[in-house]
Amino acid sequence: MEARRRDGEVVVGGHARQQFHDARGYGRPLGGNEIALAPVEAAHLLYRGDLDAVDGMDFADFLDAIEDGDADGVGARFLTYADLRSRGFYLAPEREGWIADPREDADLAVYERGEDPRGGAVAYHVRVIGERTAVPAATLGNVTLAVADEEGSVTYFETAREGIEGATTFDPPAVEGVLLSDRVLVPDPPEELHERGFYGQPVGGREEADSLQLSLVEAASLARRGSLSVPGGAATIEDRGRTVEGERFDQRLAVYGALRADGVVPKTGFKFGADFRTYREVTSVEDLDHSEALVWVLPAGHAFEPRELALYVRLAGGVRKRAVFALRDEEGGISWPSVAWVTP
Amino acid sequence: MEARRRDGEVVVGGHARQQFHDARGYGRPLGGNEIALAPVEAAHLLYRGDLDAVDGMDFADFLDAIEDGDADGVGARFLTYADLRSRGFYLAPEREGWIADPREDADLAVYERGEDPRGGAVAYHVRVIGERTAVPAATLGNVTLAVADEEGSVTYFETAREGIEGATTFDPPAVEGVLLSDRVLVPDPPEELHERGFYGQPVGGREEADSLQLSLVEAASLARRGSLSVPGGAATIEDRGRTVEGERFDQRLAVYGALRADGVVPKTGFKFGADFRTYREVTSVEDLDHSEALVWVLPAGHAFEPRELALYVRLAGGVRKRAVFALRDEEGGISWPSVAWVTP
Repeated sequence: MEARRRDGEVVVGGHARQQFHDARGYGRPLGGNEIALAPVEAAHLLYRGDLDAVDGMDFADFLDAIEDGDADGVGARFLTYADLRSRGFYLAPEREGWIADPREDADLAVYERGEDPRGGAVAYHVRVIGERTAVPAATLGNVTLAVADEEGSVTYFETAREGIEGATTFDPPAVEGVLLSDRVLVPDPPEELHERGFYGQPVGGREEADSLQLSLVEAASLARRGSLSVPGGAATIEDRGRTVEGERFDQRLAVYGALRADGVVPKTGFKFGADFRTYREVTSVEDLDHSEALVWVLPAGHAFEPRELALYVRLAGGVRKRAVFALRDEEGGISWPSVAWVTP
Repeated sequence: MEARRRDGEVVVGGHARQQFHDARGYGRPLGGNEIALAPVEAAHLLYRGDLDAVDGMDFADFLDAIEDGDADGVGARFLTYADLRSRGFYLAPEREGWIADPREDADLAVYERGEDPRGGAVAYHVRVIGERTAVPAATLGNVTLAVADEEGSVTYFETAREGIEGATTFDPPAVEGVLLSDRVLVPDPPEELHERGFYGQPVGGREEADSLQLSLVEAASLARRGSLSVPGGAATIEDRGRTVEGERFDQRLAVYGALRADGVVPKTGFKFGADFRTYREVTSVEDLDHSEALVWVLPAGHAFEPRELALYVRLAGGVRKRAVFALRDEEGGISWPSVAWVTP
């Protein structure tokens, strides 16, 4: 069966409507027996041998022709389309005339399993990229990201904007500390500071500890609340933070403060390669649940390399924690996109 | 008990030799009852209250005084020293006069459990850094890295230079392909290319596949061996690689080629956030063992942020694979430092 390109679609007549649309969910009906196929659908039909040619082109030539310098576009979209079809899903392009309320930030609508384009509900709005296409963090949330890697396997990431909610209530007592290098030491601290508030870490193992060491973000946050005093005043802690960490210190401090203000307890995520691991509700360190999320602090305008995203999300999944990103915006606000692996 | 600083050490007399050295493994004997303590040992004795002061300074003042602008130095060394002591190890500084053959790239020698500085064997040569100190990849290998994070917990990384050895023998057949965007398509490939050589990936799911897609590194590697021909010749593949990936393409291609030459089969590590996952011996894709290592390709001169290292190593550990780095040098050679978590 032959087909031809028209206005960014591929038009095919003959038995196409019955054979491709009605029976197998490809394309959108035009008049009579004609249907319009999205380029990716036409590529799939060419690949399977159901279409012989489009404007005389075979599969490889057609893919090359519609690529239009969009290095990762059609290749990745074709691979994703083929992958999802092989898993038994019907799909439609996210375009006016194809689905109701198409999404600008998505490429493919994936219908619920068992449902088809004629009135079916959409399960995933999928944005397709290749593994070499950077993804601005600000565009994550309420979309499923499909990443076609260099070998053509497709990985799916569900993105959301749920943030982190906590239920910890703790009013830190007044304490005195001393700034030592890139830490603050609190000699003979009130027990509740660590045991209930989960601030700091006992020095030298718990048994022999009689000092608590606070990280600079913990210390700066306590100092801002007026709970911690150090020689030189609160500003010396933040100055030290900027000296050893640069701009990232203020970014991390803002995220730390926002989490504590929401009743979430952040502790270092170093062992997970993250900025923080977080606890939803701490009543006592003796009786601590596992941390629920790993938080990476991102500067305004951050764009992920897909491989970087895969690393964060795989790691978080492996330790059964959510991967959450604290994305600063230009005005100093924070949004909280989260990303998880999903297998459609 | 009082002590005083002298030539970068802390000298203490009285019952010090018997009490600190003979009974508890601190310091090195001078004449008579005197011993010399390394600064970190003196800090530990001050912290525990076994020493009252050094030149009149208490623990915090002493730590501050010996810090000498070395932001992560003494704080991290003290925390590591205290951590290892609390785990029951004896330690000595890696210095002439303290241990035989001190290592320049290490800070602390850790004796085998149950052995002490008087003739004991060294279990770990530990280099101590803070989590904000970048580590040149070229310095990894045959040293244990101790990273004190911002909350004072210490993470240990064992580093080696074992490389990756393989036993795969496969001589790829001559095939023809076509360059499509950032992939190469091989229509109707000989079955052995994928099934025995583990080159490429069937397009569109295995059942319906009649084409193999090769990644650009696979294709370029096959083309260099004279096994793959494409319209335009082998150079067009490498050109495309450089267009879509820049310098990293040549780096990754060199690493891919070196692994294949050693009988190791590299496949994409995208799902693990790595460049490659590797198989030691592939005889058939039907009968594939798990991949053994994850490989990250690093440019010459790369220095790790410790948190980045924690991320790679944690991820690899979680999926029971070795974390191996392919480090290019300025002459185009490759060295293979590997890193693993270790709990002393």
